[in-house]
Amino acid sequence: MVKVGIIGVTGYTGIELVRILLGHPGVHLTYGTSRSSAGQKLGDAIPHLSDASDLVLSSFDAADATEKADFFFVCLPHGESMETVGRLRQAGSKVVDLSADFRLTDPAAYEQWYGAHTRKDLLSEAVYGMPELYREQILAANLVANPGCYPTSVILGLAPLLAQGIIDSDTIVIDSKSGVSGAGREPRSELHFPETFGNFSAYNIAGRHRHIGEMEQELSSLAGATVRITFTPHLLPVNRGILSTIYVRPIVNSDDYKLLALYAEFYRGEPFIRVSGLEGVLPSLKDVRGTNLCRIGLRLDKRTGLIVIISCIDNLVKGASGQAVQNMNLMVGFSETTGIEQSAMHP
Amino acid sequence: MVKVGIIGVTGYTGIELVRILLGHPGVHLTYGTSRSSAGQKLGDAIPHLSDASDLVLSSFDAADATEKADFFFVCLPHGESMETVGRLRQAGSKVVDLSADFRLTDPAAYEQWYGAHTRKDLLSEAVYGMPELYREQILAANLVANPGCYPTSVILGLAPLLAQGIIDSDTIVIDSKSGVSGAGREPRSELHFPETFGNFSAYNIAGRHRHIGEMEQELSSLAGATVRITFTPHLLPVNRGILSTIYVRPIVNSDDYKLLALYAEFYRGEPFIRVSGLEGVLPSLKDVRGTNLCRIGLRLDKRTGLIVIISCIDNLVKGASGQAVQNMNLMVGFSETTGIEQSAMHP
Amino acid sequence: MVKVGIIGVTGYTGIELVRILLGHPGVHLTYGTSRSSAGQKLGDAIPHLSDASDLVLSSFDAADATEKADFFFVCLPHGESMETVGRLRQAGSKVVDLSADFRLTDPAAYEQWYGAHTRKDLLSEAVYGMPELYREQILAANLVANPGCYPTSVILGLAPLLAQGIIDSDTIVIDSKSGVSGAGREPRSELHFPETFGNFSAYNIAGRHRHIGEMEQELSSLAGATVRITFTPHLLPVNRGILSTIYVRPIVNSDDYKLLALYAEFYRGEPFIRVSGLEGVLPSLKDVRGTNLCRIGLRLDKRTGLIVIISCIDNLVKGASGQAVQNMNLMVGFSETTGIEQSAMHP
Amino acid sequence: MVKVGIIGVTGYTGIELVRILLGHPGVHLTYGTSRSSAGQKLGDAIPHLSDASDLVLSSFDAADATEKADFFFVCLPHGESMETVGRLRQAGSKVVDLSADFRLTDPAAYEQWYGAHTRKDLLSEAVYGMPELYREQILAANLVANPGCYPTSVILGLAPLLAQGIIDSDTIVIDSKSGVSGAGREPRSELHFPETFGNFSAYNIAGRHRHIGEMEQELSSLAGATVRITFTPHLLPVNRGILSTIYVRPIVNSDDYKLLALYAEFYRGEPFIRVSGLEGVLPSLKDVRGTNLCRIGLRLDKRTGLIVIISCIDNLVKGASGQAVQNMNLMVGFSETTGIEQSAMHP
Repeated sequence: MVKVGIIGVTGYTGIELVRILLGHPGVHLTYGTSRSSAGQKLGDAIPHLSDASDLVLSSFDAADATEKADFFFVCLPHGESMETVGRLRQAGSKVVDLSADFRLTDPAAYEQWYGAHTRKDLLSEAVYGMPELYREQILAANLVANPGCYPTSVILGLAPLLAQGIIDSDTIVIDSKSGVSGAGREPRSELHFPETFGNFSAYNIAGRHRHIGEMEQELSSLAGATVRITFTPHLLPVNRGILSTIYVRPIVNSDDYKLLALYAEFYRGEPFIRVSGLEGVLPSLKDVRGTNLCRIGLRLDKRTGLIVIISCIDNLVKGASGQAVQNMNLMVGFSETTGIEQSAMHP
Repeated sequence: MVKVGIIGVTGYTGIELVRILLGHPGVHLTYGTSRSSAGQKLGDAIPHLSDASDLVLSSFDAADATEKADFFFVCLPHGESMETVGRLRQAGSKVVDLSADFRLTDPAAYEQWYGAHTRKDLLSEAVYGMPELYREQILAANLVANPGCYPTSVILGLAPLLAQGIIDSDTIVIDSKSGVSGAGREPRSELHFPETFGNFSAYNIAGRHRHIGEMEQELSSLAGATVRITFTPHLLPVNRGILSTIYVRPIVNSDDYKLLALYAEFYRGEPFIRVSGLEGVLPSLKDVRGTNLCRIGLRLDKRTGLIVIISCIDNLVKGASGQAVQNMNLMVGFSETTGIEQSAMHP
Repeated sequence: MVKVGIIGVTGYTGIELVRILLGHPGVHLTYGTSRSSAGQKLGDAIPHLSDASDLVLSSFDAADATEKADFFFVCLPHGESMETVGRLRQAGSKVVDLSADFRLTDPAAYEQWYGAHTRKDLLSEAVYGMPELYREQILAANLVANPGCYPTSVILGLAPLLAQGIIDSDTIVIDSKSGVSGAGREPRSELHFPETFGNFSAYNIAGRHRHIGEMEQELSSLAGATVRITFTPHLLPVNRGILSTIYVRPIVNSDDYKLLALYAEFYRGEPFIRVSGLEGVLPSLKDVRGTNLCRIGLRLDKRTGLIVIISCIDNLVKGASGQAVQNMNLMVGFSETTGIEQSAMHP
Repeated sequence: MVKVGIIGVTGYTGIELVRILLGHPGVHLTYGTSRSSAGQKLGDAIPHLSDASDLVLSSFDAADATEKADFFFVCLPHGESMETVGRLRQAGSKVVDLSADFRLTDPAAYEQWYGAHTRKDLLSEAVYGMPELYREQILAANLVANPGCYPTSVILGLAPLLAQGIIDSDTIVIDSKSGVSGAGREPRSELHFPETFGNFSAYNIAGRHRHIGEMEQELSSLAGATVRITFTPHLLPVNRGILSTIYVRPIVNSDDYKLLALYAEFYRGEPFIRVSGLEGVLPSLKDVRGTNLCRIGLRLDKRTGLIVIISCIDNLVKGASGQAVQNMNLMVGFSETTGIEQSAMHP
């Protein structure tokens, strides 16, 4: 049994990690921190996890943490995460960091989108935690930077086309819609229930969302050339799920059959990618709720020549805590799918 | 008092017309038809309109209709509407048709998107009922084709740019999201509450939605050239509202100030258009719920050079019954805003 | 035109008052206060009311207020309202107070449920603002205490039975469910969208909700004897509406026909009460959304002998701002229904 | 491995069974029927279960069924289920029937609430499948009648009080609220998304809901005397969950400590019952979503002397398919909790 600690366990990604790890046969949750609930039992702080364990939450202390657990998930806000990760790594622990702090390989990009980086020394050992693209490196990694939720849906949706080099990399338009849990557990006016219920809104339009840096890094890497994206995030009045609608222009002749064959080939054997066939319905949020799947559907618009791609994930699972467990599974030698094989919960 | 009849009063656009007309000081609802509820009182068929009136619903009969009312709203499905409209026009009544039957001026386009047209004789007298573009013609019209819900949000969102000729008309991408009332009142599996609640889905992607013909007709007319759009409709798990996110490439230098000035000028004096300033928040569905407004916000993405436009309406008001009343107001000589001046109902 | 001021205009009852008053032909909104938004235009503080008016919000100042307006709605929290009401009354202005501060005629009851009362001198002139019970007094009142949302649904649902003296007044059980807007506009953890969406919960069970004092006062007054109620409030994951399910034991023989006749007689001529007939469906939230109606349905359970009453209101309209306008209409001599005659907005 | 068949696999309880059984280590799903989708693969009929299995759905045939599977869940409507169960029992298969057909031990009661019963011969072998009350009998049973969703929440909420004989059994009031999945997968007007979204309604009030017979049978058995309940079901605009608020009058002196001690003792060791302590928050739907738990909270209302009980379940898990698997586990010798130990999925 691997002894696991979660730093920041009372946020939504921490809570989701607990839910998943309680069903994971190879781990034992032995350490958890929470600023707001230190001293409380986890089941008192988060009543719906009352069965979870008798774990008593504490404030973070590196010595205490590394004495009690061997593997860590860090669920702190960007900027705060890097120092904690540094201390855990210093003690030799393996870490999956769910913040943005180690996702950008170029510190200048980090500073552009997030601010100062104080642990640049660790950037070289961090691996971007998307197993479909970096499985070999993750198997050997000690520090994995877990991808952002929007980037997971977008990169997986676009990877086959960019890797093949058959689309124009300058005119990609990405229209993403996310459930509210992606905004975190801290109450704010605009996420107060009556403000959001029945509403739908765009935010940070026209190049202002921080995930753009991360997406362009990975898309450029796939394309072997600089990719610039037009990205619009929207807030969906639901709890879970991201659906990204992506528009790209092919630079070679294509059709639906070729496109599906390309995706099927690129993702052959991937345990968590599903590409909808031409006969089936397009994937939607209900098809991924509670799962670690990324479901993708795509079609060529023959009238305009654009390819339209639909990519769906559960933002808290494949977009955060599920992918984090997938990375842990690889890092510690479990089967990649252990503990994250649940089917979608619908209705 | 104008005596008004509604053909197909128990669908969602009919119900919304009743709600609006009950608060309209210049009209009296004297006739209503319903296939499913003929013989019932309106207030028995639609309990939340129990105060509405003692109107007894009937099956459509042209002689009866034109004896009882002088002005008609026709809320029938496309294909069924045209013959009814024909009979009402034959009797000399003024008509606003909320179906698609008279929106496409080219019968070949109608047949491509909808099927055979049996009243092509009336196409020449039909005016496309978007007062912001065709006010003069509507003032003189006897038959107005009320615009579709998606087209209303899209055409109003794009008109200033196309009319000015400052965008590339070949690369327009439109990502629209609509509340479920837009799909009508007939129960279907995929709109059964548990299937839609908490879900979000795209449908008819890659050039398959019938509103494309109508949008391209009007956008081409504005541009003075053929416009082809890539259009993706999505189903939002809410009752009301359409938010369209539109991506266009300018062909002249531009910036946010110039863009807002252009929109402000184009829509100067328009009673139902609101363009968000640079300081304000972007419009969202809650800002238009229950209103006849179209609210628009836009920004230039300096990183990629695209303009991103957000256009919001209430699909049942400005996207259907409210705009229909706006057209009626013009056609019979009321002030254009009579009966449709309500503020947004939020929360 | 009556010049109207709203003290606390940026809370949900204030916002709803603005929505209603913008459609009221006899008033002009000339004064509004907001602690958080003083100095801003109303339309900037509350974007969906951007058309509302150019009213600039201020901090409360009694001299300024009474110079600018003649009639006031006070939308402050209980405990804060009483002093403001006192100053407005001192200047001779008529006031509808939407807080609980003047609802309880017995100061001891106020102190039991809310805390110290510092303006007991005004209690004798305050009239409980439920026109169906106190219309004559409201017509002559200078200070009206607008009823609470739960009490409005409950008192109107029970009044005919208690006034007639045909039920046991010791065993009344009231199970009420309210939309989230009833909890106010201040963000809190348990009303954060992801916490409430898809959830349903009871709170303040077993005699802990403050509205009990107000309900028992009015129910006792109707019964002519002390009434004690068992009251359970619940939080519904919707924006608007209260549905109360009420269980009472008759002490005389009864049946559905007699019960409906009794309600019909008690509420004869009431403009905002609707009692469902035996053939019709029971009222639900959609039937009152956006309206000033209280809709009531009831049946005798022949198996157990209890009467079950369903009483529905929109908590922001008949349960708050609509009833406040109804009171103002009476106090200043307008027709009672002016400005609050809208039909339900559904879907 | 137990080979399992599901009769009626494409309804909501069948779908939920598949979700649960795919994570159950001791069973293999080898047979499934569907009238609407016979001939299709399960993953094509229910896209979100696309990984489920390659099971091809068929029309029911008893010989085929019992050749392919050894244990059956029957998910047919009441009235249709009894004959199918009969044929499976005739072939010697063990069956959990999720319909109402074998829940009522008295055929006259069945006929009163449901209609004619054609397999009364099987009533004597059927065991009511609530392990907390009938564990021993279930261990030995060949035919288990899985409890209804409302009855599960109500009986578990009341059992300790009735078994102890400390409440008045004539004045029990039960106010239950259920998510829409409880109404099944068949689309109907009143469950069309726009009709239900944002709405809340009571139905079948005053003794008209069929589950009353089942509840009174079990409550009477617990009390050792005839129990009559006043029961009001309501439709909540959410997908999953039942919360029942129950009002009872104690006939002995009691207080919160004694009540909690009684419940703790009655349910000691029960794997799926959780009673909230006095310090904790009351249970709500989010605390049971996706789990097989029944969570209960209760308090004495000292003002009126009534006990108020809150009982929450997920209607599709403990209220249907989860409890069915719990019964299967007992019937075939698995550990009772196998496959149904998931934590709540929240948010």
